[in-house]
Amino acid sequence: MFIPRRIREEKLRRMLADDLGQGDVTADAVIPPNLNVNAIVLAKADGIAAGIEEATILAESLALKVKAEVADGDRIKNKQVLMEVSGDAQTILSVERTLLNLLSRMSGIATTTRALLERLEKRGAKAKIAATRKSPPGMLYFDKRAVIIGGGDPHRLHLDDMILIKDNHLSIVGNVEVAVKKAKARSSFTKKIEVEVTTVEDALKAAQAGADVVMLDNFAPKQARDAHEMLRKAGFGSVLLEASGGITDKTFLEYAAAQVDIISMGELTNSVKALDISLEISKPKTEKRFNRES
Amino acid sequence: MFIPRRIREEKLRRMLADDLGQGDVTADAVIPPNLNVNAIVLAKADGIAAGIEEATILAESLALKVKAEVADGDRIKNKQVLMEVSGDAQTILSVERTLLNLLSRMSGIATTTRALLERLEKRGAKAKIAATRKSPPGMLYFDKRAVIIGGGDPHRLHLDDMILIKDNHLSIVGNVEVAVKKAKARSSFTKKIEVEVTTVEDALKAAQAGADVVMLDNFAPKQARDAHEMLRKAGFGSVLLEASGGITDKTFLEYAAAQVDIISMGELTNSVKALDISLEISKPKTEKRFNRES
Amino acid sequence: MFIPRRIREEKLRRMLADDLGQGDVTADAVIPPNLNVNAIVLAKADGIAAGIEEATILAESLALKVKAEVADGDRIKNKQVLMEVSGDAQTILSVERTLLNLLSRMSGIATTTRALLERLEKRGAKAKIAATRKSPPGMLYFDKRAVIIGGGDPHRLHLDDMILIKDNHLSIVGNVEVAVKKAKARSSFTKKIEVEVTTVEDALKAAQAGADVVMLDNFAPKQARDAHEMLRKAGFGSVLLEASGGITDKTFLEYAAAQVDIISMGELTNSVKALDISLEISKPKTEKRFNRES
Amino acid sequence: MFIPRRIREEKLRRMLADDLGQGDVTADAVIPPNLNVNAIVLAKADGIAAGIEEATILAESLALKVKAEVADGDRIKNKQVLMEVSGDAQTILSVERTLLNLLSRMSGIATTTRALLERLEKRGAKAKIAATRKSPPGMLYFDKRAVIIGGGDPHRLHLDDMILIKDNHLSIVGNVEVAVKKAKARSSFTKKIEVEVTTVEDALKAAQAGADVVMLDNFAPKQARDAHEMLRKAGFGSVLLEASGGITDKTFLEYAAAQVDIISMGELTNSVKALDISLEISKPKTEKRFNRES
Amino acid sequence: MFIPRRIREEKLRRMLADDLGQGDVTADAVIPPNLNVNAIVLAKADGIAAGIEEATILAESLALKVKAEVADGDRIKNKQVLMEVSGDAQTILSVERTLLNLLSRMSGIATTTRALLERLEKRGAKAKIAATRKSPPGMLYFDKRAVIIGGGDPHRLHLDDMILIKDNHLSIVGNVEVAVKKAKARSSFTKKIEVEVTTVEDALKAAQAGADVVMLDNFAPKQARDAHEMLRKAGFGSVLLEASGGITDKTFLEYAAAQVDIISMGELTNSVKALDISLEISKPKTEKRFNRES
Amino acid sequence: MFIPRRIREEKLRRMLADDLGQGDVTADAVIPPNLNVNAIVLAKADGIAAGIEEATILAESLALKVKAEVADGDRIKNKQVLMEVSGDAQTILSVERTLLNLLSRMSGIATTTRALLERLEKRGAKAKIAATRKSPPGMLYFDKRAVIIGGGDPHRLHLDDMILIKDNHLSIVGNVEVAVKKAKARSSFTKKIEVEVTTVEDALKAAQAGADVVMLDNFAPKQARDAHEMLRKAGFGSVLLEASGGITDKTFLEYAAAQVDIISMGELTNSVKALDISLEISKPKTEKRFNRES
Repeated sequence: MFIPRRIREEKLRRMLADDLGQGDVTADAVIPPNLNVNAIVLAKADGIAAGIEEATILAESLALKVKAEVADGDRIKNKQVLMEVSGDAQTILSVERTLLNLLSRMSGIATTTRALLERLEKRGAKAKIAATRKSPPGMLYFDKRAVIIGGGDPHRLHLDDMILIKDNHLSIVGNVEVAVKKAKARSSFTKKIEVEVTTVEDALKAAQAGADVVMLDNFAPKQARDAHEMLRKAGFGSVLLEASGGITDKTFLEYAAAQVDIISMGELTNSVKALDISLEISKPKTEKRFNRES
Repeated sequence: MFIPRRIREEKLRRMLADDLGQGDVTADAVIPPNLNVNAIVLAKADGIAAGIEEATILAESLALKVKAEVADGDRIKNKQVLMEVSGDAQTILSVERTLLNLLSRMSGIATTTRALLERLEKRGAKAKIAATRKSPPGMLYFDKRAVIIGGGDPHRLHLDDMILIKDNHLSIVGNVEVAVKKAKARSSFTKKIEVEVTTVEDALKAAQAGADVVMLDNFAPKQARDAHEMLRKAGFGSVLLEASGGITDKTFLEYAAAQVDIISMGELTNSVKALDISLEISKPKTEKRFNRES
Repeated sequence: MFIPRRIREEKLRRMLADDLGQGDVTADAVIPPNLNVNAIVLAKADGIAAGIEEATILAESLALKVKAEVADGDRIKNKQVLMEVSGDAQTILSVERTLLNLLSRMSGIATTTRALLERLEKRGAKAKIAATRKSPPGMLYFDKRAVIIGGGDPHRLHLDDMILIKDNHLSIVGNVEVAVKKAKARSSFTKKIEVEVTTVEDALKAAQAGADVVMLDNFAPKQARDAHEMLRKAGFGSVLLEASGGITDKTFLEYAAAQVDIISMGELTNSVKALDISLEISKPKTEKRFNRES
Repeated sequence: MFIPRRIREEKLRRMLADDLGQGDVTADAVIPPNLNVNAIVLAKADGIAAGIEEATILAESLALKVKAEVADGDRIKNKQVLMEVSGDAQTILSVERTLLNLLSRMSGIATTTRALLERLEKRGAKAKIAATRKSPPGMLYFDKRAVIIGGGDPHRLHLDDMILIKDNHLSIVGNVEVAVKKAKARSSFTKKIEVEVTTVEDALKAAQAGADVVMLDNFAPKQARDAHEMLRKAGFGSVLLEASGGITDKTFLEYAAAQVDIISMGELTNSVKALDISLEISKPKTEKRFNRES
Repeated sequence: MFIPRRIREEKLRRMLADDLGQGDVTADAVIPPNLNVNAIVLAKADGIAAGIEEATILAESLALKVKAEVADGDRIKNKQVLMEVSGDAQTILSVERTLLNLLSRMSGIATTTRALLERLEKRGAKAKIAATRKSPPGMLYFDKRAVIIGGGDPHRLHLDDMILIKDNHLSIVGNVEVAVKKAKARSSFTKKIEVEVTTVEDALKAAQAGADVVMLDNFAPKQARDAHEMLRKAGFGSVLLEASGGITDKTFLEYAAAQVDIISMGELTNSVKALDISLEISKPKTEKRFNRES
Repeated sequence: MFIPRRIREEKLRRMLADDLGQGDVTADAVIPPNLNVNAIVLAKADGIAAGIEEATILAESLALKVKAEVADGDRIKNKQVLMEVSGDAQTILSVERTLLNLLSRMSGIATTTRALLERLEKRGAKAKIAATRKSPPGMLYFDKRAVIIGGGDPHRLHLDDMILIKDNHLSIVGNVEVAVKKAKARSSFTKKIEVEVTTVEDALKAAQAGADVVMLDNFAPKQARDAHEMLRKAGFGSVLLEASGGITDKTFLEYAAAQVDIISMGELTNSVKALDISLEISKPKTEKRFNRES
């Protein structure tokens, strides 16, 4: 998901513009123009840093100077300084909230993702933790990046990059086999094909029909293991199994134990717990601003 | 926050476009074109409906037919049908996720907001619950609407609609009095002025300097009550007090008891718990689609 | 109304793009590429400079060098040099008209505003002169800034930053009291409430219902003074009075004398008299361009 | 300048969006949703109607019903009803100002243009009155249309549709002949070539070099007549002469008398006097809205 | 690549807007407004229809009535009527060129693609003909659709939907094995991995490293067959082989004979031969337009 | 068609954004971030360079360093280095295809145009070769520039810069004379008027009615010469004649011989043969990237 910096800048500045409306009336009223100040971005909780690159690009693209003290993916501690930002005071104050919203959301996502993965690792499980497309509209790119930074798999980036046949497609098409065959016949060779199934039998049929990935929808862990065994025995060991549907941080370890390859969790992005991060401007040393009385 | 429907449509379609990329390859591969189907949008948990209007506008703007079974603000039950949507199957499948993301986020926000307000009501407290600008970039409008639907106060809509002098402004300006006076002198008569304070004394100074609202930043409930008393005695009873900073569903009732007018909580929008909502396409009755084999 | 420079740049370049169409065919045909020239921006009349910041940002964002000789708000004289611009000749010629249109409109607005305020000052009157939203669509931000530079009040920035109940709202709601109470009940605590009235009695009712500002619509100066007196006596001295409706430079002093707080005038922005400003390119010294014959 | 309606709609809705910000808080607070009302758009002064088509398209594109009572170009009287608009009350209130801004600006321009032309006609003069590109950025299309509706000539639509060599180009190129020849050699056969001159001699050189139009910059009327005579005698009777530069409604008749073909006046669009037009909502007949108390 | 109609409309209208500039001056000058006419879209050569859906959507979105006489993918003959379009004459004339440009480009691409496939079929070869990303910037979606309509494979839709490691990536990474392994380790399970190789040995290494598709870059047909054989023997029969690089309609059959799975050809989209298609307005029956003389 | 660099940048970056989707997954997966590499852009065939300026602007606007070895319009040879590009490897790889698509299309157009002109020159013919508006939607600006670079005439830039009355307009208006007179009466003096005719007689009528250019639609060369003669004799020698309609590189010389002034050919832009151009990254010298293993 590499996007050249200048293209990302424009995406980020549009976000800021949405918050600005006709302009920041507070900075305009109480802060003198062209005053240089220093600020630090500070963690208020432990977690994993994410969005450092986005925050840096956004701030630099507004002619602020940025010194990142941590990199995306770094473990950070409460009270740790994440970045130093300096430059025009009005600009820093206007961008503060947008910048923190990005950082705290992305870091929140990365922190949760990493925590899940560490629990998996402790158990020696090898399943991937994957996101879904359950993101606030417009945030897909940033949420996916945060999941990757946390160590997870972004899953589909949007509707054009993989064939994913779900329950609603199947309601129309009729059955798993027909659907997968249709997909193979009508889609580009560049696409993988994934299909959602609700029974162990359909998991096998999906594999036989040529699916690259089989999504086990709301399977109990026991069922998931059965599916894994059946596919392995039938010679479809290379078909990936994804457990999905209502899996939480309480239950995901059981699915990992059931040998699924991927565990996808909507909560990663639709029920984010933001990491508390704040920005603090230091008192400017020179007092010359008081000459600019209005 | 009334936006004429056609303007909202465009905002919503841009959100969908972000998810579409070069197009939905799954609907294209497995679903016949021009097939009419019916779908229901279904709650998977109890809560407060929000986003029904947005979802309706988005779907109708794509030429789908919508019958909303509930209105924004209605209490909804697990398994309750929220909307019926019918029309072109490929279109429904392509918009499904964007539509559900809006509904489940907005309903999640409204549900939490309402729950807090009901706890306040039970205590007979009159404080308002207010949102902040801690929303994912681009989601400000929708998050604010969800808070309003839940019964809360949207607070500032963005940076242009109120003077809100915060800690970082004060670091630069020096003190509360100077800042408020500056703001009064340099801002339009159309704007209210709010200022953040960290001591009871500064709360009084802010009121004396002419602030319309005083934000009590990270005050203990006891301190907040002191500020309330001091302002009342000093004849500033009409100045509004807003408690802010790290207030959670565990602590907010204490602030209400301390007689503050507004309790603002960043978690309302930056740590949303999405309400589980899904869309189910019914099996189409006619079988004529099978004639369109490809 | 502070907007970070890079966001303003994009707004300004979009304006230029509208004038460019498929490109400047004249500069392309007769001016050699990569030729550096110097130009001056020159006042052709006395007035108040406004738009210097916008013009500077626009020109610099096109890689031109700018030396502003005056600042926004400065009094300028016929024939005075406002800015020096140097750089690529084709670029200067392509941006000339957009740059001058901004400068001459904004300076025209600021000049008129300042002239009105000076007449008020001479009389010792303290009323504010305020703009309205009567601006050419798309010019709201720039017109408001010009009014501020001239010393006036921008009034509402757009439809989201204040409750302003006007005659047409009242036609629907029925009366002033109900409307103001509705507004207080249903709007955010962050918003001031203003209501338009047509009688002195309604002015009092508006204040009693809780309006922050009362707009006296098409009042005679005598009536306006009556409203002022009645409100003062009834203890609503802090409620602001705004005179509005058909007030011109012939009549505004009478309203100021009537003790209204704000005088709003649509003409400030919908009947602008542009200040005459031109750009003059000096003869380039070197003759090397003649080597580039085409 | 025909633009298909749907494309114009989008242009117009973008203008409205700029005024809406995060939404109309007044309509939201005091007006019930889904209430149908009728409104009339009313002239408050005599003049020429312009912008009726734009206003109709904008309103209809928001699902309002419009009955235009006059057409663009019609002479209108004070108190005359120009349009009837009916539909959703919140929508009408939100679009009111944008719609009136368009109408009053465009009608103001058309009124002035027509008045000038009528004075010309009375004298039996045949000169065209032309606009310039001195329009607020973004308003070029609408201002040009208003001039056309008033009977004037739009002149260049932007920088791509004609070669117009002005003083600043000539400062660089050196002289009129070289510039025109360069233009002829390097521009498309589809373009006319106009050049600005400051002496009668240069007018002749321009014609000899092949200019289609010669702009007489700041010529006295007597000089303009000399130029006309000299060109006629030299056999360049078909070359058009445009008088330009500081021409006002006081002086333009003298230029017409001097036989120039076109008189261009920046004031037409940069110093517009808006025509006073207002919108009035009638009291809704049914009282059912009072059931929707909030 | 399904995109809901309303989203496609906006994409298409933006294309038209680019051609309109400040408006169609010819339709404005010579065609009366609100005149209804009928037109036919006519093939001037034999081929395969493509773009019928786009043209229909574009025209209908401008309120024109369309009756498509053929569907995308149909074989069409010189002089065959493809569509009937009726409605506002000015609108039809303004959109004519944009509509024909889409149709003739897309039909040209589909025609060439189909012709290649028919030649393959005659030989009994089963290779797919695939496009590349060699499309004029902005045309990717439409060119890919045209290839699909012609029976070909769209290949990657853009840079986000497949891992495709090419020569330039390999110059940096060093060798095929490392690159494929890196890709497997660092990309989502949702992506296929393709890698370009220049020797038969590297083709084997790529398969062993886990590539899903191997691109044989500038292989002679003989070499391509060797690669096929070697992979089959090594048990990598399911790895797809794509022949690429300078393959033309003269040479592609040899690659098909060499048992490659996919033959990709940049010429399909970067050296399109447009199918000649025109639009003809019939003489309007009623003569009432002559009453609108101007 | 001069467009300031910064405006062109934005146009070009939008093109790249279309190809990026949610980001380049290959560069992200296999290329280390912040690795500097050098690349050359290399011709793979002889021709005329075009798009060098666009490619330079696009690359530089992404913070890459560019050294152009040739200029637009230069004759280039197979294997000649056109540009050197250096900088961030991921960025170069992401922009590679968009940059080459521009260069190869524009160079293809310029090459064809120049070849035609050279054949004309050899014959001593003076006709101009002109493009049409038959370009892929969105490519108009770039295709026209390529034609100019090749030595051709861009013809109309879009629908707003010339009156061009074609067959379909005439079907509605009735005849050539009425149409031209209407156009003269209703269009701006800034526009040339061209009209398409199908007979020699109509060519004369068009000239008599005041057309500046007469388009001879599908005339045989002999007919074209007759039209030329008739106009010359009738004293309309200054009216330009444009031959148009199905003219190819096989037939265009006959039209030139027939003394037409302009020969317009749709194939120049709708049936482009891209010039083969590629980009090659050199092996980076330092091996430090291998330290960044992932």
